[in-house]
Amino acid sequence: MQSVITLPTPIEIFSSASAGGREEFRGPLGEKLDFHDDRETFGKKTWELAESELSHTVLSLALNRAKLSHEEVSYLFSGDLQNQCVASSSGHMEQNIPFIGLYGACSTCTEGLMLASLTLSVGKEKRIAAVVTTSHNSVAERQFRTPIEYGGQRPPTAQWTATAGGAFLLRPGKRFPHIVRVMPGIMVDGGVKDGFNMGAAMAPAAAASIESYLSMTSTTPEDYDAIVTGDLGHEGSSLLSILLKTKKIDISGRHFDCGTLIYDERKCDCHAGGSGCGCSAAVLASHFLPLLREGKLSRILFLSTGALMSTSSIQQGGTILGIAPVIEISGGHK
Amino acid sequence: MQSVITLPTPIEIFSSASAGGREEFRGPLGEKLDFHDDRETFGKKTWELAESELSHTVLSLALNRAKLSHEEVSYLFSGDLQNQCVASSSGHMEQNIPFIGLYGACSTCTEGLMLASLTLSVGKEKRIAAVVTTSHNSVAERQFRTPIEYGGQRPPTAQWTATAGGAFLLRPGKRFPHIVRVMPGIMVDGGVKDGFNMGAAMAPAAAASIESYLSMTSTTPEDYDAIVTGDLGHEGSSLLSILLKTKKIDISGRHFDCGTLIYDERKCDCHAGGSGCGCSAAVLASHFLPLLREGKLSRILFLSTGALMSTSSIQQGGTILGIAPVIEISGGHK
Repeated sequence: MQSVITLPTPIEIFSSASAGGREEFRGPLGEKLDFHDDRETFGKKTWELAESELSHTVLSLALNRAKLSHEEVSYLFSGDLQNQCVASSSGHMEQNIPFIGLYGACSTCTEGLMLASLTLSVGKEKRIAAVVTTSHNSVAERQFRTPIEYGGQRPPTAQWTATAGGAFLLRPGKRFPHIVRVMPGIMVDGGVKDGFNMGAAMAPAAAASIESYLSMTSTTPEDYDAIVTGDLGHEGSSLLSILLKTKKIDISGRHFDCGTLIYDERKCDCHAGGSGCGCSAAVLASHFLPLLREGKLSRILFLSTGALMSTSSIQQGGTILGIAPVIEISGGHK
Repeated sequence: MQSVITLPTPIEIFSSASAGGREEFRGPLGEKLDFHDDRETFGKKTWELAESELSHTVLSLALNRAKLSHEEVSYLFSGDLQNQCVASSSGHMEQNIPFIGLYGACSTCTEGLMLASLTLSVGKEKRIAAVVTTSHNSVAERQFRTPIEYGGQRPPTAQWTATAGGAFLLRPGKRFPHIVRVMPGIMVDGGVKDGFNMGAAMAPAAAASIESYLSMTSTTPEDYDAIVTGDLGHEGSSLLSILLKTKKIDISGRHFDCGTLIYDERKCDCHAGGSGCGCSAAVLASHFLPLLREGKLSRILFLSTGALMSTSSIQQGGTILGIAPVIEISGGHK
């Protein structure tokens, strides 16, 4: 039974940081990233270790910005797409932060922000939680698809796993953009079996979550300055619009998708847009949180979208399940 | 900064269920399992789908026992060892339960119970959370090690991934065994790189968690009827005892390890004992919760132990990180 949880006190995102690779830096939000590495190795010998380093780097940047040390963080909620989420664990092994590993595919950023908000709502002590999610294109290509050297052709509906990451620091408060309500997602099976069409697999879950959230909170799309999905891409975003129209919900003009914002199609052969746990995290940290802080947006829904599958589930004929948890973020206190 | 969180109201585990495969049924706790399948296929065509069915089955059994339907569950916290935790998502795709995917390796059971307790502590509505974790020996063997048909030799320190699962239903209350305090785990790197010696990789994390928990709560081992670790096995349990002795902490007589309880060494060639997300879950559901309900135990610490690694992290020379979140469970209200 799905429900929206109103947090007893708002949880503010008081610091954040983003990082990316070459294509992300060349994209429309490139200049807003706090850090990028054109070679995408982040100084490490393997792509997998590069992603761990990326995870480590974004958290350090967010902490530096807030003049905090790792020791002051009470909980780190983190996840990625690598098998056994090993980028997240390896990236933070030396930091002595209580670690809570998550797997929500590309929805992990919202899942983490939701769980961090709930955890900070318990008890009277003022604690700090961190949320970090990442993805790396070269890791995802060889893990989920074919070795990069193989040069496999990708259909137009395929998305480009972003080499990107975002880190967020949270605590009770409302001076900064703050989370006021959260809703966990329900898995939706749209029958899609094509790993090169994740947008179609996730759009039904995003549509269901938006419909449920608006209905349960008695709000309309007009109540929000932006309804931000994670990584539906061009294909999934079109489908979302169609699915919502059948429910008489019109989000046109206020729907933004992180997967369509992150790349410049004229410069990057990224097909249907970006994806990955790091995509929505980097776009939230580099683009939407600043707009909320500056008062250019005052109330948004943020729903990273996840495609729950593995190479074996695909090989064994399984469908790709979509999921889209939702958080509602209000701008900083004026 | 690690901390113990005292829950504002206790969260009771008011229903649970366990299931296993052939070796688990032949083990000392076999008769206590709610369900077992000697063929370990659970009626499915592949081992991966078998684990999904196992996950589905234990939750249905726990719900049936409480005369509840899937629709009455507000949150399902679930995880497993399969790449992208796909046993958990596929196992519950048709149930319309808000799904929160976790990855804490074999510590996922305690991680899930901790997060479910925290989530249920927020808001005034009386909600129900479910926690389900599973593992399957044949899935783990071919995913992490070699195909079973290869017949690879295993050293004496190797553990046997349990074909097992446990499901738990939670809500605020204290009529049943109830969680009163929780502590997330910190990753501990003991320098172990041998995937056939997980016990040694996890023992330092278990020792650190027990030491921290006792210190932060100003309690001693004597305050608990049992201190239950997840799956250190024989090797890891010996190491835990040695590590704690150097800290002048004596848990002898009250330390139990789910990995050493689940198999009968005379019947099963399980080497150092059981492991897997399903091991501690099945042993908690089938053995420790009944003892708490019957008043034979009144206060226990329960810490599933996880080894954070993947085949690529091992192949690239990484160490195996241990983690051990802790929950404190009190017996049912007398």
